[in-house]
Amino acid sequence: MVVVDRFRITDTLREVWRPLAALFLLDSLVTIAYVGLGWTWIVPAGLPLPLLGTGLAVFLGVRNNTAYARWWEARTLWGAVLNNSRSYARTLTVLMVPAEAAPLRHTLVHHQIAWAHALRCFMRREDPAPDIAPFLPPDTLARVAKAANPPFAIQREMAELLVAARRDGWLDGIEAAALNTTLTALTDSQGGLERIRNTPMPQQYAAFSRVFVTAYCLMLPFGIVPDLNVLTPLGSAVIGFVFLALDQSGRHLEDPFMRSIYDVPMSAITRTVEIDLRQAVGDAEVPPPLHPVRGILR
Amino acid sequence: MVVVDRFRITDTLREVWRPLAALFLLDSLVTIAYVGLGWTWIVPAGLPLPLLGTGLAVFLGVRNNTAYARWWEARTLWGAVLNNSRSYARTLTVLMVPAEAAPLRHTLVHHQIAWAHALRCFMRREDPAPDIAPFLPPDTLARVAKAANPPFAIQREMAELLVAARRDGWLDGIEAAALNTTLTALTDSQGGLERIRNTPMPQQYAAFSRVFVTAYCLMLPFGIVPDLNVLTPLGSAVIGFVFLALDQSGRHLEDPFMRSIYDVPMSAITRTVEIDLRQAVGDAEVPPPLHPVRGILR
Amino acid sequence: MVVVDRFRITDTLREVWRPLAALFLLDSLVTIAYVGLGWTWIVPAGLPLPLLGTGLAVFLGVRNNTAYARWWEARTLWGAVLNNSRSYARTLTVLMVPAEAAPLRHTLVHHQIAWAHALRCFMRREDPAPDIAPFLPPDTLARVAKAANPPFAIQREMAELLVAARRDGWLDGIEAAALNTTLTALTDSQGGLERIRNTPMPQQYAAFSRVFVTAYCLMLPFGIVPDLNVLTPLGSAVIGFVFLALDQSGRHLEDPFMRSIYDVPMSAITRTVEIDLRQAVGDAEVPPPLHPVRGILR
Amino acid sequence: MVVVDRFRITDTLREVWRPLAALFLLDSLVTIAYVGLGWTWIVPAGLPLPLLGTGLAVFLGVRNNTAYARWWEARTLWGAVLNNSRSYARTLTVLMVPAEAAPLRHTLVHHQIAWAHALRCFMRREDPAPDIAPFLPPDTLARVAKAANPPFAIQREMAELLVAARRDGWLDGIEAAALNTTLTALTDSQGGLERIRNTPMPQQYAAFSRVFVTAYCLMLPFGIVPDLNVLTPLGSAVIGFVFLALDQSGRHLEDPFMRSIYDVPMSAITRTVEIDLRQAVGDAEVPPPLHPVRGILR
Amino acid sequence: MVVVDRFRITDTLREVWRPLAALFLLDSLVTIAYVGLGWTWIVPAGLPLPLLGTGLAVFLGVRNNTAYARWWEARTLWGAVLNNSRSYARTLTVLMVPAEAAPLRHTLVHHQIAWAHALRCFMRREDPAPDIAPFLPPDTLARVAKAANPPFAIQREMAELLVAARRDGWLDGIEAAALNTTLTALTDSQGGLERIRNTPMPQQYAAFSRVFVTAYCLMLPFGIVPDLNVLTPLGSAVIGFVFLALDQSGRHLEDPFMRSIYDVPMSAITRTVEIDLRQAVGDAEVPPPLHPVRGILR
Repeated sequence: MVVVDRFRITDTLREVWRPLAALFLLDSLVTIAYVGLGWTWIVPAGLPLPLLGTGLAVFLGVRNNTAYARWWEARTLWGAVLNNSRSYARTLTVLMVPAEAAPLRHTLVHHQIAWAHALRCFMRREDPAPDIAPFLPPDTLARVAKAANPPFAIQREMAELLVAARRDGWLDGIEAAALNTTLTALTDSQGGLERIRNTPMPQQYAAFSRVFVTAYCLMLPFGIVPDLNVLTPLGSAVIGFVFLALDQSGRHLEDPFMRSIYDVPMSAITRTVEIDLRQAVGDAEVPPPLHPVRGILR
Repeated sequence: MVVVDRFRITDTLREVWRPLAALFLLDSLVTIAYVGLGWTWIVPAGLPLPLLGTGLAVFLGVRNNTAYARWWEARTLWGAVLNNSRSYARTLTVLMVPAEAAPLRHTLVHHQIAWAHALRCFMRREDPAPDIAPFLPPDTLARVAKAANPPFAIQREMAELLVAARRDGWLDGIEAAALNTTLTALTDSQGGLERIRNTPMPQQYAAFSRVFVTAYCLMLPFGIVPDLNVLTPLGSAVIGFVFLALDQSGRHLEDPFMRSIYDVPMSAITRTVEIDLRQAVGDAEVPPPLHPVRGILR
Repeated sequence: MVVVDRFRITDTLREVWRPLAALFLLDSLVTIAYVGLGWTWIVPAGLPLPLLGTGLAVFLGVRNNTAYARWWEARTLWGAVLNNSRSYARTLTVLMVPAEAAPLRHTLVHHQIAWAHALRCFMRREDPAPDIAPFLPPDTLARVAKAANPPFAIQREMAELLVAARRDGWLDGIEAAALNTTLTALTDSQGGLERIRNTPMPQQYAAFSRVFVTAYCLMLPFGIVPDLNVLTPLGSAVIGFVFLALDQSGRHLEDPFMRSIYDVPMSAITRTVEIDLRQAVGDAEVPPPLHPVRGILR
Repeated sequence: MVVVDRFRITDTLREVWRPLAALFLLDSLVTIAYVGLGWTWIVPAGLPLPLLGTGLAVFLGVRNNTAYARWWEARTLWGAVLNNSRSYARTLTVLMVPAEAAPLRHTLVHHQIAWAHALRCFMRREDPAPDIAPFLPPDTLARVAKAANPPFAIQREMAELLVAARRDGWLDGIEAAALNTTLTALTDSQGGLERIRNTPMPQQYAAFSRVFVTAYCLMLPFGIVPDLNVLTPLGSAVIGFVFLALDQSGRHLEDPFMRSIYDVPMSAITRTVEIDLRQAVGDAEVPPPLHPVRGILR
Repeated sequence: MVVVDRFRITDTLREVWRPLAALFLLDSLVTIAYVGLGWTWIVPAGLPLPLLGTGLAVFLGVRNNTAYARWWEARTLWGAVLNNSRSYARTLTVLMVPAEAAPLRHTLVHHQIAWAHALRCFMRREDPAPDIAPFLPPDTLARVAKAANPPFAIQREMAELLVAARRDGWLDGIEAAALNTTLTALTDSQGGLERIRNTPMPQQYAAFSRVFVTAYCLMLPFGIVPDLNVLTPLGSAVIGFVFLALDQSGRHLEDPFMRSIYDVPMSAITRTVEIDLRQAVGDAEVPPPLHPVRGILR
């Protein structure tokens, strides 16, 4: 995620320069043909750009609004992962009080750290084993590693530990129910993130907005060259840039887990989970928070 | 649901080619008449296309936004079906702890798998019996099969089993109340899905947007032929395509359960419920997840 | 509510034919005067229709979006009535377990059916007595019938029955609290529906959108007759239809309880509540679900 | 709040007649100068009204959507005050069951009525003492009257009464926790209302939309007089009315507690709270509901 | 936050006068060149301002709507901080009833005040020590001061105090679970605020809207000078002002914690928390509420 305060416009130019350059080339060719060579016949008497623009505006309006909503929902769900992880650790403290339960509390909190890391890897379709190994006993790790859904498997392991705690008399029904409520909130966050990852933006919006923006840009120089003359490449580039940027902005937010510079900073969030929870159980060494690298936080 | 990364524009063209071809034919006839035969009288001095376009833009904006919201709400409710099924299985583990309750826990989790399959069939107005038979005892299946609302009947069966568990002392009031909360969440998901299925998009939006887009497309060639001349079929097709695609996009999202290539992948989601819950109770054979077939996940 | 799959455009035409016919008449008069009689002076040199159209688009956009949101919120709240009624019946089963409490459970579920019917009548400002009489003891019915807010009175009766159950030892504090949570959800649904019924759409949106659409339609033929000539009545009717339909669509959704063909199908929903809850307590005769009559579900 | 079914357009005209009359005067002067005196030099060759209109449309769209959302949120929160007051009274019945607790239940419900009245006065910055005196013991009233936040003070008094009830053994921990949950919902409603009252709409939207609409109206007659000639005052008034009405509509909804004819009917809602709660505890005399006076419900 | 009723337009002019003045200067130069010197060649035959305006309208519409939503979400979360702080204090009263627990209740409420102040400082990246010192014991303060996330550390301290209370028998499992629920709500508010602070608005919206508005303003005088002549600077300034104000309005709401005159009044809200909670525990001296200074509440 871009977090720098001063946004360098060059960053985005780097992403749209290719279509912009192609557009500029086309504009120049059209201008040379029309103005230089006098091939006025290449331009129809009038191009219905405003008619096309109206349809395009509706398309891009709907698409960019929904893309933003997807991105913000993904960010909010990751925020819920952090909030609920903190609440889970605190709830364990408040509700599992026997002094002899301290090692179990420590184990459960480490399971929770592992859950957050496993969820991040699951979202990015990566192998979670290296990231979660430090937080799970070897046999647990082995079971989790071969599960189809590692974070869900970790939650099942936590449930087993809670059952053992109940049998040891460290939790009564009320306390177990309250802890279970926290686990349900975590399950909901995970499910919400899976939903966004597994459900791409309806393809017609994604595909068509690119197609229509391209069509619009192709028609643009023909429509404005009679009026703008030699300024056509400049004018066409400015207008084309607005529509290309609109399309690009929607595209970037549409898939919040694709490791682009605009995605949700999952590594940083799970690191915060690790720091907060390790501090909460008094671990000695705690890793530092992640910092943006060249304005980008991952 | 289309899940391929590379969307083949041909897929959508296949769906709109009919109106597009009709539009192209009309455009060509108009062009031939106007340019070829010189029947300039077929074209009025000025067509108020922008006036019509403004009204159409409002119409399509409202409609496509609400259609997307419906589709996303349906997808979110199916996500809740998955989340709550997982939470229900975990809650059973954490709250129904006696060792001798293990068979009952297994039965209850299988009821839950049956509930998810029954809900999918209920949404698609299909007979659930084949899909739920493996998970229910024969007499339960018989009772469920003749209920008007099979998933609701399965929930009633689960409630009876919980009552029996309470009488056996395997659950106290608190634990039963907590389990009941999970069942309430499942009831809410089911009710939400029934609401979307039973309440079509207000017909005036659905019907009128098609009517108005058609009217617009019919007027289009007459409006642009004086300026575009022989390019009319091309220009008209591009603009017509934008509006047809807008209408089509809204139409596809409007009814998320109609087995189109854009609907919610209910089979895949209920398969995930089955996999996760069977793994949770340690079933030996677990079916594989569903995979997209030619880019489409059902 | 219109539920037919094939929407007959004639249904809506029947509703807007009056203003459309008036518009067509005006258009024809203007056309005859301008084209036939040559009274070109009736048309100003240029009518600022686009300027008016822009303002109108903002107006209709805001209004139709909010009207749809109201309608969908009302539909969702009625969905919650159904969900919460089901959950309440199930909760009674799970939490009020003594065998000797069976008659009371039956009575409470019948109260809940009465509540749903009373709420429907309350929304439509009808006398609930005939509909709720089969489900309530005579003295309860008498008390409810004279209450200002019958559904709220039924909830008070249920609360008294729950208190009696507690005194009989059939419910403990936890179980009563859990049942009370369900009743709170029902209270919230009722309150939300009262809110929508008692709070009309801000009148300026409702009144002005009609006024402005009318003004626009009146100006329309004068604005397009110089260009469209004898086609004016046709062109004006198409454009006028778009704006009249936009206004009409908003108007229909704005008040979801007014017994129009677009309102929420409250009779069908409360019938579903009755069926599901009677089946849940094992009543012998259960009424059939309501079916659409000529495509309309009430 | 305007609740009449037939909205008299004159009501709104009464509110915008001043700017409309000023606009009409300006229009007439411009028309006389241009048409009558032939001062054609007062009108530039072309006024960029569409450019201004586009910006204005975005402004008014954003502003009116957010103003409506504020108003509806305020109305929903007042609805929650009513719902939660009803639920609180019912919860007291269900959870504080000892027969000897009846007087305390009565007192607590009267406190709740006082809370609703105090909240209304707090929103309108009025002295609550006259309205809440009938429902509170004198010493409680004295303490509440000098609190900075009277409704919050009443909640504190209720908490003290609940503590006393716990010490008397009339409530156990579970019941107290459940009642406390209801009080939390009431606190949230109050906090939401304070938030809306204390946070005006961002002033740039409120101020600029007026400024820009005024600028637009001032330019309007100059822009249309060459085309409309003597019809300019009429045409300009119609278009100006649309934009003035848009601005006015947003302005009215923006501050839902300002005692305009569009505000939330707080007196009627708190009267309903009083009626429902007094009936719930069997008070003898219950005031009648408030009715609209000349179509306005306060 | 600006809270004055009468908004002085000069306040905002002060913020946009720089770009406006630059625009006015450019306009004047263009006017002098075109009208005074007759350099008509500087103006192309037609500038595609409406095409650019359409794209810009979509951009600014999406951006301003989302910026407002961010700002209102931030405000709502701060409202939740206030609500939940009040509920937490009341919950402590109702659920931790032993008379000998009074000092602990007092300490816990003071911790809560410290939490609110620490959260405000954390949002503004300031050192919380001076603000929270009066409310925490010295050793607690020392531990909190060196935590990476001071408000989270204060919550951990509260959890430890609750554990001690449980061991003293002042709280049972139910009461602890209910208090823990309140703490979870506070954790969620904090997490939501961190989310907004740490996730800037997608930079492409922020950066591009400024770039495009600037481009539009630069083209404006060239586009309108042929029609407006000597009135160009005036007309261009009015239109430019609309777009600059739109951009500026979005920019101000985008980052609600940046200590601009439009940010959320965090100092006032945390002061209210302090006042309400100190009154709730009967503290002798309570600070006065913060008042707006020159119309601005911080």
